[in-house]
Amino acid sequence: MTKPFLAALAGQRQPRPPVWLMRQAGRYLPEYRAIRAQAGDFIALCTTPELAAEVTLQPIRRFGMDAAILFSDILMLPWALGWGLRFAEGEGPILPQWNTEADTARLDTARLPDAIAPILQTVRLTRAGLEPHRALIGFAGGPFTVACYMVEGGGSKDHARTRALAYQDPIGFRGLIDLLTEATITYLAAQIEAGADTVMLFDSWAGVLSPLLFDEHVIKPTARIVDVLGRRFPHVPVIGFPRLSGTLIGRYVEVTGVCGVGIDTATDLRFAISHLSDLVAIQGNLDPAALLAGGAALQRETARILRLCRDRPFIFNLGHGILPPTPPEHVAALIEQVRRA
Amino acid sequence: MTKPFLAALAGQRQPRPPVWLMRQAGRYLPEYRAIRAQAGDFIALCTTPELAAEVTLQPIRRFGMDAAILFSDILMLPWALGWGLRFAEGEGPILPQWNTEADTARLDTARLPDAIAPILQTVRLTRAGLEPHRALIGFAGGPFTVACYMVEGGGSKDHARTRALAYQDPIGFRGLIDLLTEATITYLAAQIEAGADTVMLFDSWAGVLSPLLFDEHVIKPTARIVDVLGRRFPHVPVIGFPRLSGTLIGRYVEVTGVCGVGIDTATDLRFAISHLSDLVAIQGNLDPAALLAGGAALQRETARILRLCRDRPFIFNLGHGILPPTPPEHVAALIEQVRRA
Repeated sequence: MTKPFLAALAGQRQPRPPVWLMRQAGRYLPEYRAIRAQAGDFIALCTTPELAAEVTLQPIRRFGMDAAILFSDILMLPWALGWGLRFAEGEGPILPQWNTEADTARLDTARLPDAIAPILQTVRLTRAGLEPHRALIGFAGGPFTVACYMVEGGGSKDHARTRALAYQDPIGFRGLIDLLTEATITYLAAQIEAGADTVMLFDSWAGVLSPLLFDEHVIKPTARIVDVLGRRFPHVPVIGFPRLSGTLIGRYVEVTGVCGVGIDTATDLRFAISHLSDLVAIQGNLDPAALLAGGAALQRETARILRLCRDRPFIFNLGHGILPPTPPEHVAALIEQVRRA
Repeated sequence: MTKPFLAALAGQRQPRPPVWLMRQAGRYLPEYRAIRAQAGDFIALCTTPELAAEVTLQPIRRFGMDAAILFSDILMLPWALGWGLRFAEGEGPILPQWNTEADTARLDTARLPDAIAPILQTVRLTRAGLEPHRALIGFAGGPFTVACYMVEGGGSKDHARTRALAYQDPIGFRGLIDLLTEATITYLAAQIEAGADTVMLFDSWAGVLSPLLFDEHVIKPTARIVDVLGRRFPHVPVIGFPRLSGTLIGRYVEVTGVCGVGIDTATDLRFAISHLSDLVAIQGNLDPAALLAGGAALQRETARILRLCRDRPFIFNLGHGILPPTPPEHVAALIEQVRRA
C-alpha cells in the first residue's frame, strides 16, 4: 500500500500533504501523562516496549497523522553505549562529562546490541499496531548534538565548552564524533531492520557551530550516515534536521544527500524553497508557539505554509517540538486544516 | 581627528580593520572583577559613573581597541522605566512578568530622564577619558529582545511564552514593542547627546522569531529607531545586531537602513558578504569559543575572517560576547594579529 509520507520523501508532490508533528507523542496529551506516571522514570518508559509502543501510537489514534515516530530520546544511544544518563525532573538530562580522547574509550560498542534490543522491540510492536498506509519513523540524534550533551554533561545555553573543545582538541573531538557516527549507523540500521520505514537525524544544536565546524561535525558525519545506510537500504529515505543551520541549509542538503530536510521555525521558508532542489522533501516549519496560541494566528500561519509549499514535495510539520502546555484541541484543528488543504 | 571605526561605518574600507570585542569589558579581566567586587551589585556598578567609566576604559588601556562600548546592560532601559530588575548571582536577570496590555501602563516614561542620568554621566566621563581617535559606542537592546526578558520574567531557553503572546495578543504585544521603541529612541538620543559617537542595537533573541514576526517586531521597530535618530543626528551611524537572523539578514539591513550590522558566529560570512551592500559595514563574526581555545585555531579563524572581508567596510569583532573563562592573553594575541593585518 502506498504511504503518502514516503511518496513525498521520494520527491513526489502529494495532492494533500502528509502531516506529523515533532513530539506528537508527549506531555501535552493526558493519555501520555497517564502512561508516563505508570512507567516511573523516563528511561524505563523508553525501554519498556509495550508502553513505548503505546505512547508512539496514541497521537495517531487521536489525530490520524500520516507517520508515527518511535518514542525514545536521542540520548538513548550514549546510554546504550554505557554512558551514564539520568533525567532529573524539570532539569533535563544529566550525563558524565566527556573531557578527552581517553573518555571515548569508555563508550562500549559491544554492549550496544543488547542495550537497544527493547527499543527495536518497540519498533516491531509499533509497526504491527500501525495501519499500512502510515509510515513509522526511526531516529537518532546527529552525532554533533549527542556529543554536545556528552561534553556539556547535559543541556547548555550556548554549548561554549563543546565548541571550545572542537577548536582546542580537534583530533580528540573528531574521534568522539567518528565513534558516535558509526554507532548511529548501527543503531539506525537496526531500527530499519526492525520495521522503520524511514529514519531521521535530529541535529538540534547544529546551529551553534561556525560554518567550518558545521562542515566538519554536522555535514561530514551526516553524509557518511546517509551514504552507508543508502547502500544497505536503497529504498529507505533519510531525513536530516540540522536545526538553526540558517544560511547553510543548502550546502547541508546538497552534500549529505538526505531525501528530506526539516526546516526550523526561524528559517524563511521562501529562502529554503528557492535554495533546495525540487527533488528534496521539505518538512516544517510551523512555529510551535503558533500551535500553542491557536485560533486565527494558527490558521493564518498554517495556510501560509501550505500555500508556499503547494507545488513541491512537502511534509507538514512544526519547526520544533510541540510545547507541553499546548491544548490537544489546537492539534486537532491543525490536522483538520491540513487535511482540507 | 579621524576615527577608523567611524570611517568603516561610513562605508569606507580601512587599510587595517578597526577592532573591538563584544563584552570586552567584563568578567574575563581581573581588573574588572576587582571593580565589580567594590561596586557590590551589578546595577550599582551600572549606575555609578566613575566605576562604570573605569570598567569601560579598562580593555582599551590593556589592548587598545578602536572603540569602547558603554558599560551597561540592555535591561537598564526597563529598569529606568520603573520595571523591577535584579541580577541573581549565577542565575541572570529576574524581572516581573509582562502579561497584558495593562502592564504596559506600568512602564513610567516620566521617570526615564532622571533614571538614566548616571548612565549619561558614564558616557561623558568615558568620552573624556578616551583618546580622540577611538570611538565610543552607546547601546540599547532591540525592543523585541527587551520585551522577551519582560514577558519571560528573565532569561529563557526558547522564549515560547513571548512568541505565543505575540501570536495570541498581537495588539497588546505590539503596544509593548511600540512603547519600548519610543523609549529606546529617547535613551539612545540622550547617549548621543552625552558623547556617544555611534549607537548599537542588540537584538539578541531576534533569531527565535518566524519571518513574519521578525518583520513585525524586529525590522519595523529598528527601522523606526534608525529613521528618527537619522533625522536628528544625521552623522551618527546606527549598528544593528539581529542575532541568529540567518537568512533574514539581507532584508533586515535593506529595510532598516542601519550603517553597520553585527554578524553572529553561525552565519556564513560569505553569505553575508554576498547579500549585503558594499556600503554597509560588516562587524563580526569570530566564534568566542575560538577565542577561548586560543592557539592555532584562533589564528586560523581570525585569518579567514580578515581575508574574506579585506575588500569591504569591515569592523573586526566576535559573533557573540567574550566568554568569562577566556584568558586575557588570547585577547592580546587576537588584537595583535588584527593589527598586523
